[in-house]
Amino acid sequence: MSSEISTTSSGSGITCIRAGWVIQVDEENSVIPDGCVVWDNESHRILNVCPFSELPADVEVTEHLPKHAIMPGMINCHTHTPMAPLRGYSDDQNLQDWLQKYVWPAEAKFVSPEFVKLGSQLCIYEMLLSGSTAFVDMYMFPHAVAEVANDAHIRCFNGEAVMDIGDGSIDKMIDAAAEYVNNKENRSEMVTPLNIAHACYTVPKDKLKRISAIAKPAGTLVHIHVHESQAEVDEYFKQHGESAIDALDEAGLLNDHLIAAHCVHMTDEEIARFARSGANAVHCPRANAKLASGIARVQRMLDAGVNVCLGTDSPCCNNSMDMLQEMQYASLLGKVAGPGMNPKAVNCYTAVRMATINGARAVRRESDLGSLEVGKLVDMIAIDLGRLENQPVYDPVSAIVYTNQRSVTDVWIGGKRVVRDREVLTVCKPSVERLADYQKQIAEFKAERKAAEVAAHA
Amino acid sequence: MSSEISTTSSGSGITCIRAGWVIQVDEENSVIPDGCVVWDNESHRILNVCPFSELPADVEVTEHLPKHAIMPGMINCHTHTPMAPLRGYSDDQNLQDWLQKYVWPAEAKFVSPEFVKLGSQLCIYEMLLSGSTAFVDMYMFPHAVAEVANDAHIRCFNGEAVMDIGDGSIDKMIDAAAEYVNNKENRSEMVTPLNIAHACYTVPKDKLKRISAIAKPAGTLVHIHVHESQAEVDEYFKQHGESAIDALDEAGLLNDHLIAAHCVHMTDEEIARFARSGANAVHCPRANAKLASGIARVQRMLDAGVNVCLGTDSPCCNNSMDMLQEMQYASLLGKVAGPGMNPKAVNCYTAVRMATINGARAVRRESDLGSLEVGKLVDMIAIDLGRLENQPVYDPVSAIVYTNQRSVTDVWIGGKRVVRDREVLTVCKPSVERLADYQKQIAEFKAERKAAEVAAHA
Repeated sequence: MSSEISTTSSGSGITCIRAGWVIQVDEENSVIPDGCVVWDNESHRILNVCPFSELPADVEVTEHLPKHAIMPGMINCHTHTPMAPLRGYSDDQNLQDWLQKYVWPAEAKFVSPEFVKLGSQLCIYEMLLSGSTAFVDMYMFPHAVAEVANDAHIRCFNGEAVMDIGDGSIDKMIDAAAEYVNNKENRSEMVTPLNIAHACYTVPKDKLKRISAIAKPAGTLVHIHVHESQAEVDEYFKQHGESAIDALDEAGLLNDHLIAAHCVHMTDEEIARFARSGANAVHCPRANAKLASGIARVQRMLDAGVNVCLGTDSPCCNNSMDMLQEMQYASLLGKVAGPGMNPKAVNCYTAVRMATINGARAVRRESDLGSLEVGKLVDMIAIDLGRLENQPVYDPVSAIVYTNQRSVTDVWIGGKRVVRDREVLTVCKPSVERLADYQKQIAEFKAERKAAEVAAHA
Repeated sequence: MSSEISTTSSGSGITCIRAGWVIQVDEENSVIPDGCVVWDNESHRILNVCPFSELPADVEVTEHLPKHAIMPGMINCHTHTPMAPLRGYSDDQNLQDWLQKYVWPAEAKFVSPEFVKLGSQLCIYEMLLSGSTAFVDMYMFPHAVAEVANDAHIRCFNGEAVMDIGDGSIDKMIDAAAEYVNNKENRSEMVTPLNIAHACYTVPKDKLKRISAIAKPAGTLVHIHVHESQAEVDEYFKQHGESAIDALDEAGLLNDHLIAAHCVHMTDEEIARFARSGANAVHCPRANAKLASGIARVQRMLDAGVNVCLGTDSPCCNNSMDMLQEMQYASLLGKVAGPGMNPKAVNCYTAVRMATINGARAVRRESDLGSLEVGKLVDMIAIDLGRLENQPVYDPVSAIVYTNQRSVTDVWIGGKRVVRDREVLTVCKPSVERLADYQKQIAEFKAERKAAEVAAHA
């Protein structure tokens, strides 16, 4: 749990945060009451995690948060941040209607680098305030997202999304995606390019093979939607005589570099294949419920050895980027995921692991991120458990997952303070005026389409 | 939507709140952008609801909340407020283990009028801050809860809980319950006594008949747990050769005065009986998920004509009293309630109706409460939708139900301001010291029981 600390390890000194509880998310799920996290200001790596009573006498506490729990930053493993201007644009629809009748037409009309930048600013602002320190994105214009992430100092894993929209442009998309991941200038402390295939049902198998050929030699992550709705699973099998997972496997993508969003409708055999291959499943409980896609069998996947992490999905289908809430949903829904129900499934400790260390594993950064342990980078958040609405706190992990009104107050990423007492320090707020302007245009577009539809049926 | 207003209707004048949106919850689900609610300061009844542009020239706006939506106060139709000191005491357990191994032993040791008062203070404080203006409680020592509710100026429907604990005391409990509901001194503007039977599996049918004989002539509401878990349903049928709903019917309790919490496992025929009889079902989505009881078929019940309202259940099984969150869960879970899934089920407007007008109907106060319409009492809340994390707001009802970080800032109950800009004005905060003291004792009790259990198995 703790290790020797040398205060002379760095000329620039050390930082020591003392808090009501330190939730380490180590192998033993250690929770240290009145604990400290000490790090080196130059390497941004943790030197010591210990009870305050065991803090070496020569270490000064930089800051004391007695009513807070500190824990690793949360890693939102499936998002489409640029979609934020479409939040609330179309609710209470199923996945295919939502995509085909509402989202895709609006995207075709409005998406531009400016739209993408604005949406990412809005989402990143919300993610920082709610304790996400990294996110795995899927969208177009990745440079625009990366620029915002670098400015905000939040870890971003993203790329050029590839999808066959039927106009012969898919090969050019793949070329652009290859250029994005292979150009070293796109890498930074905060941004890691990856490959994206929208889904097997929108990217033919030969194109998946091309993506695999780009990703594999470079050791690049591949982000994709898998088995989100039963209709999608059935239709794929009907058209191809195999499942999307067979196609991924044949394309050489079913391995520990795959980040597969959703995985709601997995057979036991497919779960076993995920476990064997090391492929990562991103559970998005709220988006899957809202679009009536279903409830993923999370505990079953975990028991089988699948690395299940957590994502919000886009602000247009969730409609929130708050990973604290996502943990609560994961835990509660995990208990009623059929067949059979189990109140011990996806307990609050499991939910925290999914949001942190499992996410770090999915992006293959578990040696650096995902827990508060000696040697790891300081991606850390503080959560206020002092409000009366959270009392009593028998266990801070329960309070974080199962209560409400607990809020993230402070966020450090790579040792840098990016949120202090609920104020984002790094990223400029998105322009409220530009957002209002988009909202007006998008609302008019929706009204026009509605009017046209009514006229067509008249 | 609007009506004539007479500014001379009261010597003490009128109040007019103008807000970004007024969500009326009338028959048409009207949402008025830039709207006003005007009321008489003496009768506390609404005189006018209209767009600001239609406000009579002689009415002055008392307060303008441009980024807020105002809507009827939420009615939490199933709670056990005194259990707040047990929040987080035992998570990740199934209903029967949770009750028998953890909750009941702790209650037997710790519950007293002081404990009850402290717990209710804590819950009521949390309910006011999160926009509940009324609650239906089930517990012991109802006088203590009523005292807190009167002081806090929140509407409370409660009574003496009746339950056969096997020591022959049940008839005395029923006598005490009768005394509580029949003593006019226990009624106030805020407190309405009702009858309580814990459940059919804990109250024999002849005792249900006694309760019915008390409730019926007085027109008193009856609050009970019904069909919470499948195990409970099966066991009841095995023991009695009929369902709990048959027993309620035979006891004369299956009528529009019944407030039946949970109703998770209802056959189609039972749903039809609820609809015919007018019995009210309280959906508690988070508690039902957390205890792995299941997902109630809410849309099915609504379609059949059952009045389904919403409750948090106790802070010991939820562990939050936040009805905004409960609406979100109701809406999202309603879409994946089997068999079959439907993204249009329990849409955000339905969720708001369940939390407001349906609750008012359940407590038989729909002529006074549950919507913002002329003639009704002013039980109203303001919700801040101005934060960036909620933008854009295409529809305030969607933003209230589906986003996070929207928060209740102001609450009026019976025209009285009880919360102003997130500060509770009426009720004293519970004693943090007494709460900490209980927490310490309860944690020790749990540790002792755990040690004894380990020793017994050694």
